[in-house]
Amino acid sequence: MAEPATATQAAAPAVALLKDELDIVIPTIRNLDFLEMWRPFFQPYHLIIVQDGDPSKTIKVPEGFDYELYNRNDINRILGPKASCISFKDSACRCFGYMVSKKKYIFTIDDDCFVAKDPSGKAINALEQHIKNLLSPSTPFFFNTLYDPFREGADFVRGYPFSLREGVPTAASHGLWLNIPDYDAPTQLVKPLERNTRYVDAVLTIPKGTLFPMCGMNLAFNRELIGPAMYFGLMGDGQPIGRYDDMWAGWCTKVICDHLGLGVKTGLPYIFHSKASNPFVNLRKEYKGIYWQEEIIPFFQQAVLPKDCTTVPKCYIELAKQVKEKLSKVDPYFDKLADAMVTWIEAWDELNPIGPVPNGKAA
Amino acid sequence: MAEPATATQAAAPAVALLKDELDIVIPTIRNLDFLEMWRPFFQPYHLIIVQDGDPSKTIKVPEGFDYELYNRNDINRILGPKASCISFKDSACRCFGYMVSKKKYIFTIDDDCFVAKDPSGKAINALEQHIKNLLSPSTPFFFNTLYDPFREGADFVRGYPFSLREGVPTAASHGLWLNIPDYDAPTQLVKPLERNTRYVDAVLTIPKGTLFPMCGMNLAFNRELIGPAMYFGLMGDGQPIGRYDDMWAGWCTKVICDHLGLGVKTGLPYIFHSKASNPFVNLRKEYKGIYWQEEIIPFFQQAVLPKDCTTVPKCYIELAKQVKEKLSKVDPYFDKLADAMVTWIEAWDELNPIGPVPNGKAA
Repeated sequence: MAEPATATQAAAPAVALLKDELDIVIPTIRNLDFLEMWRPFFQPYHLIIVQDGDPSKTIKVPEGFDYELYNRNDINRILGPKASCISFKDSACRCFGYMVSKKKYIFTIDDDCFVAKDPSGKAINALEQHIKNLLSPSTPFFFNTLYDPFREGADFVRGYPFSLREGVPTAASHGLWLNIPDYDAPTQLVKPLERNTRYVDAVLTIPKGTLFPMCGMNLAFNRELIGPAMYFGLMGDGQPIGRYDDMWAGWCTKVICDHLGLGVKTGLPYIFHSKASNPFVNLRKEYKGIYWQEEIIPFFQQAVLPKDCTTVPKCYIELAKQVKEKLSKVDPYFDKLADAMVTWIEAWDELNPIGPVPNGKAA
Repeated sequence: MAEPATATQAAAPAVALLKDELDIVIPTIRNLDFLEMWRPFFQPYHLIIVQDGDPSKTIKVPEGFDYELYNRNDINRILGPKASCISFKDSACRCFGYMVSKKKYIFTIDDDCFVAKDPSGKAINALEQHIKNLLSPSTPFFFNTLYDPFREGADFVRGYPFSLREGVPTAASHGLWLNIPDYDAPTQLVKPLERNTRYVDAVLTIPKGTLFPMCGMNLAFNRELIGPAMYFGLMGDGQPIGRYDDMWAGWCTKVICDHLGLGVKTGLPYIFHSKASNPFVNLRKEYKGIYWQEEIIPFFQQAVLPKDCTTVPKCYIELAKQVKEKLSKVDPYFDKLADAMVTWIEAWDELNPIGPVPNGKAA
C-alpha cells in the first residue's frame, strides 16, 4: 500500500454503475493527467471540471473523457451577482459543479488522488464502492459492532433492534486515503513522515448526533437527497480562512441529515493521496479555523432545526439564520458566510428549478 | 481466518501487561480445556472461574493456571440473601466474578472462544489488545475518520478540535469474533452457514449518545471506573429471558459512561468463536427480549441521569429507579430486575467496602 496502483493493475474492466446518473466533479488548477490512471473507472462517466484561479489558463484533459469545464468567467456569467457565493483560488469552488450537475449522484475527487491498492494488491475502484455505499441503507440510530450490516458476509448482530434494521437512505459516502493522511498543518509539521498504511476493511454509519471531519478529497453524495447542503463556503481569495470548506459542508450536512433522518457513511473506499500540501501555507490558511472550530463545533452539536424544516433548502436557510445569530460574535466573517449560504440556496434554486425533496422523488 | 490459531502459532512469548492488576473471569459449565490454547497469553494472570449449574460437578482446570473457582454454593454462602441477584443456569453468573475481584481490570471470555489469527497468520493476543485499548484514551465527543487516533501510525485528522484531543478515560473495550458471528436466533436460523471472515483492523470509540449491542464473549473493562454498572441482570433459571445479560450490561454501562464522560471502545481484538449455539434453544431464551428491546432501547436512549449522580453506584441506583418507573409496564419482570439492580449494588458495596470513584482513585 506504499505505492499507488500501476496502470496495468487499474486496467481491469469495470462495470460502470449508475453511468447516466452520476457526475464526477473535479476542482483543479492544472492539467488533468491524473485522470489517465483513473481511465478504466471514470471514462464511462461525465466529468464536471471546475477550473480554479486564472481563467485564461488552458487546462488539458486527457483524450476520450466526456466533460464540461467551467472557469471563473463561466461561473460569473452563469450566476451573475450570485457568483459571490462561490470561492475563488480555493478548491471550495468545486461546489459550483454540484449546482450545475443535473444528475442524482456526485462523486468528487482531488487531482492529487490516485488509484489505491487493497491488501491483496488489487486496484480499488473507489467510485464503485461509493456507489455501493450510497445505494445501501445507513443505520444511524444504533451502532452495529460488525460495521455495515448490508455488506456481504455481515449482518445485524444480536441485540440490534429489528425495527431499525431497514435502515434509512444514505445521503453521503465519505472515503479515506492511503499514503498521505488528511492532517492539519500542526500535525503535518509534527509528523512530516507519517503515512497511512492501514487498510481498514470497513464501512460504517456515523451515528446520529455525532459530528465528523468531512474531507472533500474522496467524497460521494446523493445530490437529490442532500445536494443543497453541500456548500463549501467562502474560502481562499479575499477570505480570512482556507481548508475548512469541506469541514463546513460536513458539519452542515451532518446536522441536516440527522434532522431529516438520512445517513452518512465513512470508511471504504480508499484512494492513494500522493502529495502532502505545504504545511506552512496550510498553517496560514488554517490558523483561524483551528481557533474558530472550538466554537463552531459546539454550535453545530447544539443546533436544533425546527420541525417545519422538512426539505434540505429549508434546513439550510434556517442553519444560515442560526450561524448569523450565534457565530457572528466569533468573527464578522460568519455574518458574510451566513449571507453567502442564503445566496447559495438562491443560486441552487435558480439552476435547479424543480426542487428535489428529501425522499428523493421530484416534487 | 477460517480456523483458529494452532498451539504453535499461539506459543509466541508474550509480555504479560498489568499482570497483577487484571483478573480473567470465565463462566463455565464444563472442563476448561479451552485454556490450553490460551496458555501463553493467560497463564501469568489470575483466573476467576464462575461455575454455572450443578455445584456438585467438578470442573477441571488445566495444570499451571492460578485460579479461584466459585460454584452456586459459594455464591450463596458469600452473598447470603443477596445471592438472588446472581443468575443461575446462565452465563450471566459471570458478573459475580467482577464483584469478588480485587483488581483494577477485568477481562471476560467465553469457554468456546479460541485464539484467532490476524490476516498475516499470527496468533492474536486478545488480552494484550484489550489492555492497549483500556490504557489509551477514548474520543466519544467527535468522530475521528482514521479510527483510534492513539494507535501507532494514526492521529487526529484535519478538523478534529484540539480541545478534544486529550480524550477521556476508557472504561470498556469490546472485542469481536471471527468465525461464528454473534447473531440472534432469527438471524442464525436464516443464515446458518454465515461465518465472519472479515478482519477489520480498527478500534474505535462508540460516540457519546450512541448505544451498541455489547457482547460478553470477549470483553474487558476498568473495574474501578465502571465495575458496578457491569451487572448482567436476571437471566436463565426461573427468569422469562436469556441471552440479554450482556446487552443489559451494555445499555446501562453506555448510558453511565456517557453521563460520567468515560469512553467505550469496540473493534480489535478478535477471538475465534468456535461453535454456534443452538438457534432453537436461543429463540426460546430470546424471544421476549427481541420484543422487549423495542421498548427498552428507546428507554435507554432517552434516559437522563441527574447531575448529582457523580459515581457509578449512584448512577446505577438512579437507573434502577427509572427502570422500575418506566419499564415495569412492559412486563413485571422489570420490576424484579430493578430490585435486583439495587441488590447488586448493595452486594458490590459489601464486597468492595472502599467504593471506587469515577476518577479511578480510591475515595
